[in-house]
Amino acid sequence: MFVKLKDSDTIAAIATPLGEGGISVIRISGQQAFAVADKIFVGRNNLAESPSHTAHFGRVVDSSGSYVDEVVAVTFRAPNSYTCEDVVELSCHGGYIVTQKVLHVILSAGGRLAEPGEFTKRAFLNGRLDLSQAEAVGDLIHSQSEAAYRSSVRQLSGELSRGIKGVRDELLNLSSLLELELDFSEEDVEFANRKTLEDRLVGAIGVVDELLASYAVGRVYKEGVRVTIAGKPNAGKSSLLNALLSEDRAIVGPTPGTTRDTISESVSIGGVLFRLTDTAGLRETTDIIEHEGVRRAQKEAEEADIVLLVMDYGEQYYNGIESMYSRLAEACDRSEIRLIKVWNKIDLYRSEAPRSTTDGNGFYVSALLGDGIDFLRNGLSKMVLSDQFNESSVVVTNARHRDALSRAKRSLGLALDTLKGGKSREFVALDLRAGLNALGEITGEVTTEDVLNNIFSKFCIGK
Amino acid sequence: MFVKLKDSDTIAAIATPLGEGGISVIRISGQQAFAVADKIFVGRNNLAESPSHTAHFGRVVDSSGSYVDEVVAVTFRAPNSYTCEDVVELSCHGGYIVTQKVLHVILSAGGRLAEPGEFTKRAFLNGRLDLSQAEAVGDLIHSQSEAAYRSSVRQLSGELSRGIKGVRDELLNLSSLLELELDFSEEDVEFANRKTLEDRLVGAIGVVDELLASYAVGRVYKEGVRVTIAGKPNAGKSSLLNALLSEDRAIVGPTPGTTRDTISESVSIGGVLFRLTDTAGLRETTDIIEHEGVRRAQKEAEEADIVLLVMDYGEQYYNGIESMYSRLAEACDRSEIRLIKVWNKIDLYRSEAPRSTTDGNGFYVSALLGDGIDFLRNGLSKMVLSDQFNESSVVVTNARHRDALSRAKRSLGLALDTLKGGKSREFVALDLRAGLNALGEITGEVTTEDVLNNIFSKFCIGK
Repeated sequence: MFVKLKDSDTIAAIATPLGEGGISVIRISGQQAFAVADKIFVGRNNLAESPSHTAHFGRVVDSSGSYVDEVVAVTFRAPNSYTCEDVVELSCHGGYIVTQKVLHVILSAGGRLAEPGEFTKRAFLNGRLDLSQAEAVGDLIHSQSEAAYRSSVRQLSGELSRGIKGVRDELLNLSSLLELELDFSEEDVEFANRKTLEDRLVGAIGVVDELLASYAVGRVYKEGVRVTIAGKPNAGKSSLLNALLSEDRAIVGPTPGTTRDTISESVSIGGVLFRLTDTAGLRETTDIIEHEGVRRAQKEAEEADIVLLVMDYGEQYYNGIESMYSRLAEACDRSEIRLIKVWNKIDLYRSEAPRSTTDGNGFYVSALLGDGIDFLRNGLSKMVLSDQFNESSVVVTNARHRDALSRAKRSLGLALDTLKGGKSREFVALDLRAGLNALGEITGEVTTEDVLNNIFSKFCIGK
Repeated sequence: MFVKLKDSDTIAAIATPLGEGGISVIRISGQQAFAVADKIFVGRNNLAESPSHTAHFGRVVDSSGSYVDEVVAVTFRAPNSYTCEDVVELSCHGGYIVTQKVLHVILSAGGRLAEPGEFTKRAFLNGRLDLSQAEAVGDLIHSQSEAAYRSSVRQLSGELSRGIKGVRDELLNLSSLLELELDFSEEDVEFANRKTLEDRLVGAIGVVDELLASYAVGRVYKEGVRVTIAGKPNAGKSSLLNALLSEDRAIVGPTPGTTRDTISESVSIGGVLFRLTDTAGLRETTDIIEHEGVRRAQKEAEEADIVLLVMDYGEQYYNGIESMYSRLAEACDRSEIRLIKVWNKIDLYRSEAPRSTTDGNGFYVSALLGDGIDFLRNGLSKMVLSDQFNESSVVVTNARHRDALSRAKRSLGLALDTLKGGKSREFVALDLRAGLNALGEITGEVTTEDVLNNIFSKFCIGK
């Protein structure tokens, strides 16, 4: 079992995003937080003697007494703070240099620069958050869509924790019963009806299964839907990408991952993040429908949830396009990827283009003029939403949680088999314990320093 | 005279830099700040009934009561706040979506999105800062070097304001004396000795002159030293740029202005920002020493404070290089630009390269190996520092202030001429008044809504 260590040194970091803004906040946490802050803060009141949860205007000075900046200092006394330790938060002017200056002065006065995620780690170690809630803080901060935001808020509120706790309590009960039997093993007592034990274990496995299944949706909530835009050169892939982005581009933050070879952009449609990748940057001379092209599209599409195949509307009756499509469709089918046909450039074929903007054969659009784009966006949104669980069910969004659930499922499955096989109760108890431990990793009841370091190192400094 | 209006509506904006961080702060200011905050904040205490300068943990909910985020709300009661109005600051989680959510809920509850710089504008309108101090807030936030930071901190502390006030007080005294004489003009009284008036006016002009002259340094403090790196193709311009940047690149923020044609990077050397522009992106086929090249270098260099002319050390004795250099030097001389020779690639000419890294003929470096780069950096730094006023003198860093000082100087000069010419005192008084008004624009005693809008529109939202 993990021993909750209290790190005793006092840490400091810029808690707000880096950049230029009206103000930046620098957080100091630890036993010496007030002592460190008072060394550099000059105001009407001494912070160490001020009540908790009070704000004080003053100035920060360096060790030689020189003025550094005007600040407002807010005091939080343990355990009523984010970290459950003594905390002082200083709001200074929000420039790059001035914020670094204030931080530097604090570090010179005895603070240590916080490691990534160290404030949240301390909140976890001090019992303010469990591990899945601590992870939700990171997810909440990084969320780029309504769905990601919602799911992380729910996880932060302890929804997943409560779900896990429910299964664990049930398993702990079963485990106690079995271990009680083991204690009285010489008397060959059965405290619980075998069938009842089996049923209860099956029930617990069912809950774990449901949580595991929710990851398909949870991943989409958290990471978005990966959409690859494929098609022949000049079919209008880039235009389609731009048309899909146009409306909502501004409300999505900066997108990482733009490379020289593929263009990736994120857009929120119906509250869900779609990560659109245009293969246009790849060698345009490759005909994606031809032999090599299919292989390339396949490779690109391997990582996708949805492939949008863009085709010139005028080509629909041309020789071979349907058979080429079938081959791509087969490849997508094998990888459980949805393939959607988008017939583009309908503005060039007004007389013959279908009146409806979508039918069983795909969507009909003019990426250039924007015709039919809303229908395609709605279609994408519905496709994903119809996959989703209802709002009230608990959703797993984290790969680490999924792995732990998988291991729990395997152990509990083994326990069930052993129980059914009427084999030694020691083995059943052992597998139950393994399942319990795997579930305990999710909320952090069972964890190691390595796991913690791995989790919190993904945070930025200041969280 | 400008009438100080009190805008009565309640404004809100994200006050911290945009991006991902541990927390973001949203500031609400105005008569309804507490009412708006209490509509969306659910905590143990009602904010409107809480004392000023207290912090309250709670959650933000939307109009349907749905949970939006956990926050800490800090209260500031008028006039003890940044804007001198009632202010509530909410610290929420520092993600893009979550911060927008909280802001959105506040705006739905009756806040109006603040205009750029509106918090600081209100601080000015309510008399907490004068105009030059308000401008210093913007400069402080945007400062990218120690020198820029220092000069904006000094301006924020009111140093320039006090300097301006000193001259204005003196001019107001002179003006009163003259106007008193005008009131008694029929009696032809002289309240002040003409010579004394002249001397005092000359003294005031001297102070204005000194402030004007300080702008040469102030501009360098605030905007940095513009350095153009010129030279033949393959002389090593890009290598020199990289060598100069290497050490300090990390401590300078992201640089705007990188274009396809020229590469611009900023580096802080000795606390002063140097903006290095490499002309490498320009047509490399142009020989900068040849006829057309000189013209181009001239054009590039027009905007520069310093031109570093990079030359292959091996070429120093080659035919014509000195005469070409002379022509460039002449052009630089005309525009008061410093031209510095940098002999590069000394690693290729070990046996004949000079032992010293610099002499009257320039600097000797190997941009590739970094040899001599520190000397060049020191040289650049000293060149600028030796230009500077001593630390205690007031420095003008703002073009608007310089323009106002120029106009003041002209008006006061006219007043002096009129006074000396013994002409009508009415004209002297008029010119004095014009000078006073020009000076008053700097601190905002005299200003117009247009001027204010122009100044604060350059701020970001949230300041």
